[in-house]
Amino acid sequence: MDRERCELWLDEVQNHLRGELLPFWLTHGEDKKYGGFLTYFDKDGNPTGETQKTLICQTRMIYSYSSAHRAGFGEGDFLKLARQGVDFLLDNFWDPDHFGWFWICERDGAPVDRSKLTYGHSFAIYALSEYAMASGDQRGIQWAMETYKALQNLAADNCHGGYYEFLEQDWTCKPPGVYGGDRKSFDVHMHLMEAFTNLYEATGLHICERRTQEIVELIMGRILHPEHRTGVAQFALDWTPLRAILFKNVWGADRDVEQDEGRPMNNTSFGHNVEFAWLFKHTADILDLDLEAYEDTLRTLYDHCCEYGIDWERGGVYCEGPHDGPARERNKEFWQQAETLIGMLDAYLVFEDERYLDAYENVHRFVMDHVINHKVGEWLPLLDENNKVIWDYMAHAWKINYHTVRSMIQCERRLLKILK
Amino acid sequence: MDRERCELWLDEVQNHLRGELLPFWLTHGEDKKYGGFLTYFDKDGNPTGETQKTLICQTRMIYSYSSAHRAGFGEGDFLKLARQGVDFLLDNFWDPDHFGWFWICERDGAPVDRSKLTYGHSFAIYALSEYAMASGDQRGIQWAMETYKALQNLAADNCHGGYYEFLEQDWTCKPPGVYGGDRKSFDVHMHLMEAFTNLYEATGLHICERRTQEIVELIMGRILHPEHRTGVAQFALDWTPLRAILFKNVWGADRDVEQDEGRPMNNTSFGHNVEFAWLFKHTADILDLDLEAYEDTLRTLYDHCCEYGIDWERGGVYCEGPHDGPARERNKEFWQQAETLIGMLDAYLVFEDERYLDAYENVHRFVMDHVINHKVGEWLPLLDENNKVIWDYMAHAWKINYHTVRSMIQCERRLLKILK
Repeated sequence: MDRERCELWLDEVQNHLRGELLPFWLTHGEDKKYGGFLTYFDKDGNPTGETQKTLICQTRMIYSYSSAHRAGFGEGDFLKLARQGVDFLLDNFWDPDHFGWFWICERDGAPVDRSKLTYGHSFAIYALSEYAMASGDQRGIQWAMETYKALQNLAADNCHGGYYEFLEQDWTCKPPGVYGGDRKSFDVHMHLMEAFTNLYEATGLHICERRTQEIVELIMGRILHPEHRTGVAQFALDWTPLRAILFKNVWGADRDVEQDEGRPMNNTSFGHNVEFAWLFKHTADILDLDLEAYEDTLRTLYDHCCEYGIDWERGGVYCEGPHDGPARERNKEFWQQAETLIGMLDAYLVFEDERYLDAYENVHRFVMDHVINHKVGEWLPLLDENNKVIWDYMAHAWKINYHTVRSMIQCERRLLKILK
Repeated sequence: MDRERCELWLDEVQNHLRGELLPFWLTHGEDKKYGGFLTYFDKDGNPTGETQKTLICQTRMIYSYSSAHRAGFGEGDFLKLARQGVDFLLDNFWDPDHFGWFWICERDGAPVDRSKLTYGHSFAIYALSEYAMASGDQRGIQWAMETYKALQNLAADNCHGGYYEFLEQDWTCKPPGVYGGDRKSFDVHMHLMEAFTNLYEATGLHICERRTQEIVELIMGRILHPEHRTGVAQFALDWTPLRAILFKNVWGADRDVEQDEGRPMNNTSFGHNVEFAWLFKHTADILDLDLEAYEDTLRTLYDHCCEYGIDWERGGVYCEGPHDGPARERNKEFWQQAETLIGMLDAYLVFEDERYLDAYENVHRFVMDHVINHKVGEWLPLLDENNKVIWDYMAHAWKINYHTVRSMIQCERRLLKILK
C-alpha cells in the first residue's frame, strides 16, 4: 500500500468535506420560514424557487445532518438542523388516518401526494434512527418504530416475502406497470436493509435484527442473480425477474429514454451493486454475521464494477450494463461515484487487494476533478461518458446531501483506517 | 337428491345440537370462581380436577359460544358466557411487556407458559372477531387487531412468507426440531386463513382482505402438494417439505408413537384437507373470489378423502395416509369426523355430486352411532379402526366444543340449504 497516495486522497477528502461540502449545507437547506428543508439549488447554489418537500429529501437531509453530528462535525449546529427537520416531518408528513408518511407536501406542510412509498419509509427509518443515535431524542426511536410497524402491518408481502413498494394513501397497492403496484426492486429492498440495520443499532431489539437478517437472505437468495451474483433491478411480486422500467411518481423518469419496453433483461447497476456491497459489510458488522460465507459474492460485486463499470480511460463509473460484459448506459451519475468511492475502500479493507485502491483512485480523481463544483461546494448530478456536464444543478427533488456527505464521511473513516 | 335421507340427517343434527350438545356446554365450561373456562371433563361429563387454562381452549370456547349466539341459540346466555371468557382473556392472557398472548395460565390467570404460539394467536383473532360480530362489543375488534399486529410485527417471516409458529415470550424463535422453531405447518396457516377471513368479515379492512389472499396463495402455491394437491403437513422455514414430527408444548404428543423419525414423507391428513376445503369455500365467499380457478383443487381434496379416507365398511374417517393410496393411520379422531361432515355437505353444494352425500351419510351415521356420547352430550375423542373407543373423556386441554358445535351448526345450515 502506497501511503503517499492514500494521504493525498485523505487530504482532498477532508478539504472537500470540511471546506466545501459541509459549509454548503450549513448555509443551504433549512427552511427558516416553515421548518424542514428546501432542497432545490441551481448550479451556483441559489434557490431555484421550487419549494415542494418530498419525504425522500426531508428524511435524507435529517440523516445527513445527524450523521455529520455523529461524526463530530458542526458543534451542535448540524444536530439543530436535523432536529428542526424532525419537527417539521412529525408535524406534517405523518398520516394520522391511515398511518405512514405522505410522499410530497407543500412548503408549508400541506400534503400534495398522500401516496405511501416503501422507499420513502425506509429512509424515514434510516433517518430517525440515525437522529436518535445522534441526539438521544426518544422521538427518533419512537417514530422509527412507528414507521417499521406501519410498513410491517400494511406493506409487507406475507406470501412472497419482502414488501410492496408503491401504495396509495390507504395502503392498497397502486396500479401495475409504471405505477409500480405489481413490482419489487433491488433498490427498495437494499435501502430497507440499510434502514433495519440502523434501527437495530439504535434499539438493540431482536425483531429489528431478525428483519435485517430476512432482508439479507432475500437479497442474497432472490435479488442477486443466481449465477452472476450482481443485482437484478426489478421483479414481479413473486420475485420473477423483469425488465426494469421507469416509474411515475419518483425521480428517474427524467433521466432515461428507453421507456417503452424497459431496459434489457441482462442489466445491472454498478452503483447499486457496490453500494449494496459496502452496506452489507456494515450490516454484517452490526449483526455480527460471519462474513466468510458472503465473501465470494462481495468480491464478485466489486470485481464486476472494476472490470466493466469503471471508465479506466476518462475516469468515473458508468451507470449500467449487462451482468457479464461492458457497460451499456455510460453516463456518469454523481451517486454512483459517491457509493463506489466508499465501496472500493471497503473492498480494500476486506480483501487487501491493491486493485481496489486503483479503482478508488480512478473515481476519486474523477470526482475531485470533474464532479465536484468546488466553487459552490456540492457535486454535479450527471456527466456523459466524455465527462461533459449534462445537468449542473446542485440539489433537486431527489438529489441532496445524502450520497455526497455520507461518501466523504465514510471515505475519511476508511482512509484513516487504511493509513493506521 | 333423496329428500328423505336429508331430512333424517337434519333431524338428527338438530336433536343433537339442541338437545345434547348445546345444553352440555350451557352447563359445563364456565369457571364461576375466576372467570374464563374450565375444560376438563371425564366420560361422564364430570370435572377431572385439572384446571390449567390454555390459550387455545379459552379462545375456542369464546368462538363457539359467540358463534352459537350468532346462529340464534341461547337467548343471550351463550353471549354472556363468551363475554366473561373475553373478560378473563383480556385480564390475564395478554403480555403487556412483549405483546401477544401467553400460552398457558393457571386457573386464577397467573401465567405458567409465556410462550407465543402463532396457532393460539390465530384462534384469538378468530374468536375475538366472532365475538365482535356476535356482540357488537368493540373490544372484540380492538383486540383482534392488536393480535394481528403482534403477529405481523413479531412473527411474520418477511423472507419466505408465512409466519414463524413457535416463539418464546419475547418472540424469538424456539429451538429447532420438537420445539418447532424452524418449522411451518399447514395446520397453522390454514387456521390463519380462517382467522383473517373472520377478521376481514368483522372489520371490512382492506389489509385483512390482503392478508387472507396472501395466505390463500401460500397454501395453494406452497402447502398443497404441487401434483397431488392434498396438504403437506410440515415444512422448513423456506417451505421445503419435511417429514412431519410431533412438537412439545402442544397436544398431539400424546397421540402418536412414530416419534423418532417422524411420519413418512408421503403423508396427508384427511381431516385437514377437507377442513381446508370448506374453510376455503367460506373464504372465497367472504372475499368474493372466483371459485372456478380453485374447483379442481377442491374436488381433489374431497375425492381423495372419499376414496382413501372414509371407512366405507365400518364408517367414519381415518386420520392420515399417503397422497395417493389407502389410509395408513386408521384411528378415527372426533375432529376429523366433525370437519368431514361440513366438508362433504359443502362439496355437494358446490359440485352437486351425490357421492359426497353418500360420504356425508357414512360419517354422519358413524358419528351419531359411535362417536357421540348421547347420554352426556359431547363426542368421544378417539376410536380405533374397528370403532373401539380408545379415549373416552368429554373435554380436555385440546378438545372442547370448537369442532363439535361448529360442525353441527354448519351442517344444519347446509342441510337446510340442500333441502330448500
